Amino acid sequence: MVAPRVYEALSQPVVGHLDPFFFEISDQVRRLIGHVYSTENDFNLAISGTGSAGMEAAVSNFAEPGRKFALLTNGFFADRIGEMARRQGAEVVRLAKPWGEPFDPQEAREFIRRERPRVAAFVQAETSTGMFNQAKAICEAAREVDALTIADCVTSLGAMPVLVDDNGIDVAYSCTQKGLSCPPGLAPMTVSPRALERLKARPAPPPSWYLDLLLLDTYYVGRKYHHTASATLLYALREGLALAAEEGLENRWERHRRNHLAFVAGIEAMGLRMHVPEGHRLWTLNTPRVPEGVSDALARQYLLEKRGIEIAGGFGPLAGKVFRIGLMGHGSTGKNVLLVLEGLESALRDQGYEPAGDGRAAAEKALAVSA
Amino acid sequence: MVAPRVYEALSQPVVGHLDPFFFEISDQVRRLIGHVYSTENDFNLAISGTGSAGMEAAVSNFAEPGRKFALLTNGFFADRIGEMARRQGAEVVRLAKPWGEPFDPQEAREFIRRERPRVAAFVQAETSTGMFNQAKAICEAAREVDALTIADCVTSLGAMPVLVDDNGIDVAYSCTQKGLSCPPGLAPMTVSPRALERLKARPAPPPSWYLDLLLLDTYYVGRKYHHTASATLLYALREGLALAAEEGLENRWERHRRNHLAFVAGIEAMGLRMHVPEGHRLWTLNTPRVPEGVSDALARQYLLEKRGIEIAGGFGPLAGKVFRIGLMGHGSTGKNVLLVLEGLESALRDQGYEPAGDGRAAAEKALAVSA
Repeated sequence: MVAPRVYEALSQPVVGHLDPFFFEISDQVRRLIGHVYSTENDFNLAISGTGSAGMEAAVSNFAEPGRKFALLTNGFFADRIGEMARRQGAEVVRLAKPWGEPFDPQEAREFIRRERPRVAAFVQAETSTGMFNQAKAICEAAREVDALTIADCVTSLGAMPVLVDDNGIDVAYSCTQKGLSCPPGLAPMTVSPRALERLKARPAPPPSWYLDLLLLDTYYVGRKYHHTASATLLYALREGLALAAEEGLENRWERHRRNHLAFVAGIEAMGLRMHVPEGHRLWTLNTPRVPEGVSDALARQYLLEKRGIEIAGGFGPLAGKVFRIGLMGHGSTGKNVLLVLEGLESALRDQGYEPAGDGRAAAEKALAVSA
Repeated sequence: MVAPRVYEALSQPVVGHLDPFFFEISDQVRRLIGHVYSTENDFNLAISGTGSAGMEAAVSNFAEPGRKFALLTNGFFADRIGEMARRQGAEVVRLAKPWGEPFDPQEAREFIRRERPRVAAFVQAETSTGMFNQAKAICEAAREVDALTIADCVTSLGAMPVLVDDNGIDVAYSCTQKGLSCPPGLAPMTVSPRALERLKARPAPPPSWYLDLLLLDTYYVGRKYHHTASATLLYALREGLALAAEEGLENRWERHRRNHLAFVAGIEAMGLRMHVPEGHRLWTLNTPRVPEGVSDALARQYLLEKRGIEIAGGFGPLAGKVFRIGLMGHGSTGKNVLLVLEGLESALRDQGYEPAGDGRAAAEKALAVSA
C-alpha cells in the first residue's frame, strides 16, 4: 500500500537528470537512505531498477570470477543471489537449510571460518518464507576472514531494525515497495567504506555497466552524466523515506512488531500455525501454514475477488503450504490486521474449514493490550 | 515534458506485480510498444530500468564472449555500446566517424561484409550529436553475413520513423522520457524472432540475471514471477503510448519534422549553423553550433534561470561547441519552437552576440507555411 503523500509526490513535475534541483532531491534521498539503514556510510544511493536490480548491483560489483562466494541460504531469494553470483563466474559455496529454518550462529560462524570466502551473502528478511535471519554472527565471522558481507533487506528496510552499522553489514540493498510504501522501481542501497576499497581495487570492472557502483558514484556525487535517473521515482522515495523519518524508526519498528504479534494471536486463535519459529519471524510478512484440506489458491482468489485483498501464496518447497500475508509500511495497521483475519476466516469457511476460535477477537485483544 | 494525462496516470493505485490487472496493463503496453516500433514482433517489453538498462539488455543478451561485435560509431552513445560489449567479453571491431558525421552506406556495408560479426550495433538517433543514422544498409549487410543488428532508438521512438520491420532491425531499445513524454524509468524494447532463436541457442546465459530476456519472457508472457515491475511506470508508459497511437504515428512524425524545420529556419536566420548536415538531422534534438565568442555554459544558465528552459550542452569532442535542444513528444510544439528561439536570442545578446536576423520571425513563417 502506497501512502497518499507518496501518490501526490508522483505527479510532481519531472526535471532533468542533471538539473540542480534533481541533485538536491537525490542528495536528500541519499542521506535518508543512510538514516533508514542506521548507518554512517557516505555511499548510499537508489539504484535505477527494482529490488532485484539492487541484488544484482550488490552481487555483480562484489562477486569476482573464480573467487569464493559464500551463501547462507534458507529460502528462494538467497538461492537467487547464488544464481547471480554463478553468472558472474564466482565459485559459490553454500550453507543450506530448509526454507524457513534458522541458522545456528555457531554453525554460520564455522562455515565462514572454514570456507574463508571473499564475500558472504545472506538474506536478512526472506520474502519467500517470512523469516528474519540474524546478521551479527555472519558479519563477525566474515570480518575475521576479511570477507565482505552482502545482506538482502528487501522486506526489512523501513519496517524492522536492519542496523547496518551495528551488525557490521558491508553491502545492503532493498526495494521501495515494501517497508517504505512507495511504488516499485528503485533499490535503496548502502556500501561500507571497506567494501568501497575492495571495489576500487577490483582488477577489472564488473560486467554490468548500468549497475557499476563506481560509475554511479561519479553521477550522484560527481554530478557527471551516467544514466537518466527517474526524478518521479525519487520524489516518491524521498516522500516515503521522509514519512519513515517523521514517524521515527523505533516507533515504526514497534508499530510493525505490534501488528505482527496481533496477527499471529489471531492466526493461532483460529487454530492455524505459523511456518517460521517464534523469534525468527518477519514483522512485515506473515506466513501461516495452509490448514489440511484447504486450497491456498482458492482462498487467495476468494480474498481478491470478495474482499479486494491481495495476499500471496507459497512457492518452491512451500507451494500450497503457506500463505504469505504482507502487513508493512503504510499497510501495517491494526485495522488491516483485523480486515485480513476476518477475510481469511471467511475464505477458510468457504472451503468448509471451521476455525478453532475467533481470530479477530484474539487480535483485537492483543492490539488493546499493546496500545 | 510530460503530458498531463501521463501525470494523472502516475498517481493511479499501485497493484501487485502478479495481479491479473497488472498483466492486462503490461499486455497493452507490449502491444503498443510493437505499434510504435512499427513491427510485427511478438517479443516486445518494457525493461525495468532506464534507456541505458535497455542498452545493457540488448548488449548483454546478444554480445558473446570472444565473438565479434561490430560497432558503427559516430557519437557518445555508440561508444557506450562498445564499452558494454567489451565488458561482456566480446571482441569489438569499430567503424568510427567523427561525432555527427554520417556513414556512407557503401562503407557501412563493406565494413560488415569484411568483419562478418555475430552482431552489428549502431545508434539510430544519436543524442550526443543530434544525428539520425540510416539503418537499412547496415541491416541488409548484417543479414548477408548472418549477423544480428542492435539499434539504439532512444531519441527516435515515438517521434521519428524507427521502422523496425522495414529496416530489418533485430533488437531495438529506447527510453520513455523522450519521444514518448513519460517520466524516465523504463526501456521499451523489441526483439525479432531471428534474434530470439539466437538467444535460445546461446551456450550460456548472459551474466545479467536482471536483464535476461528469456527470464523476462517467462514473467511477462509466462506470468511467472521474475522481479517486481513498477505498475506505476507502466501506467504512465501505457498512457504515453496511447497518446502516440491516438495522434497517429505518421501525424506525430510530421509534427516533429515541421517543428524541427521551423527551429532550423530560426537558427539559420539568426546566423547560426546546425552541426549535423541537412538530411541527417534528428527532428527531436537540435544541435546548433555555439557561435564564436559565446560560452555555452553561460547561455544555458541564462535560459534556465531567466526563462525556466533547460537545454543541454555538447560534451566529449563537442563540449562547448554545440547546444543540444530537445523538442520532442509533448514538448514538440510551434509555441515551444518560438519560446526557445526567443530565449536563445536573449541569451546570446546577453553575451554581446548580435544575431544576423530575426530567428523568431523566420520560424513563425516556416510554421505558417507548413500549417
